[in-house]
Amino acid sequence: MPNYAKKDFPTHDVRRFLEPGPIVLVSSAHKDQPNIMTMGWYMVMEFTPSLVGCCISAANHSFEIVRRSRQCVINLPTVELAPKVVRIGNSSGRDIDKFADCGLTPRPGTHVRAPLIEECYANFECELVDLSWVRKYNIFVFEVVKAHVAASPKYPKTLHYRGDGEFMISGENTRRYRKLFRPQMLG
Amino acid sequence: MPNYAKKDFPTHDVRRFLEPGPIVLVSSAHKDQPNIMTMGWYMVMEFTPSLVGCCISAANHSFEIVRRSRQCVINLPTVELAPKVVRIGNSSGRDIDKFADCGLTPRPGTHVRAPLIEECYANFECELVDLSWVRKYNIFVFEVVKAHVAASPKYPKTLHYRGDGEFMISGENTRRYRKLFRPQMLG
Repeated sequence: MPNYAKKDFPTHDVRRFLEPGPIVLVSSAHKDQPNIMTMGWYMVMEFTPSLVGCCISAANHSFEIVRRSRQCVINLPTVELAPKVVRIGNSSGRDIDKFADCGLTPRPGTHVRAPLIEECYANFECELVDLSWVRKYNIFVFEVVKAHVAASPKYPKTLHYRGDGEFMISGENTRRYRKLFRPQMLG
Repeated sequence: MPNYAKKDFPTHDVRRFLEPGPIVLVSSAHKDQPNIMTMGWYMVMEFTPSLVGCCISAANHSFEIVRRSRQCVINLPTVELAPKVVRIGNSSGRDIDKFADCGLTPRPGTHVRAPLIEECYANFECELVDLSWVRKYNIFVFEVVKAHVAASPKYPKTLHYRGDGEFMISGENTRRYRKLFRPQMLG
């Protein structure tokens, strides 16, 4: 099991980990009932405030928890957690406590009541800021209010879902094209 | 330069290529003026109809072209195109014809007037279906109305942007966790 020592990370730069498109785990809690779901349909929307748009199906147990508590944590699992990621996607929080079922450790956040998942590479504490597309598209807009990221390794090895049980695993990270960018495009 | 022979692909399954989070090229045209932009902030929103939410900054020349023409093509470049992807992100269609500047080939679509980029692994022809978040978040919701995907290789080697000139390149594709999924979660 990964054991990441984490440090504070600037919320305006979470795109570094989310824009590449990994599957993430959304943890939430309502009246001390915690839950976890897998999420592949989300997008970075803004740097500052740090906004992320998330599609959470109304069929999901987390839907009502998030809607009522108005908070969640977006957690970034690495490849060692793949069996747990699948197990979380397979089951419903209506039936089980997914933290206990998967042997994952809930940790208190600093800004939200929703629990962080200790074993993940990064934890982004989020507050719900826009529900106007929840009814139409199941889309929640969250603001990342606090980010915790592993001090090492520099790059997480992440899972990217293709559907039908297939994953792409993140490969090489490179700055070899960086010299081609106009300076204004960097930073 | 890649030379992909393409075939029709089911629009409800474009998540196979978009959910893993690659950088894409959005091509568009208004009054025969074509343009291309890079896009990293987008999400799959629905299978059927096949919906994709796309963040296109109002500072971008493509913003008005897409808003007026109500169409675009989402093109999937592979790693060989990385220098062209950076060049497209560096420049503005106000100043140059990006197809000519980058040596890319525009091809007519079957459903939209926006040009497809021949050299890309996949081309998703899109119609704009919801502008209600354009003013608030620069988000356009498109329906993929026709999908063209390379017949081979099975998996594209894609670019995933981290910001600051850094890319993650897609790695291994695996079905090794597929046996862990409940059958209802597959397909």
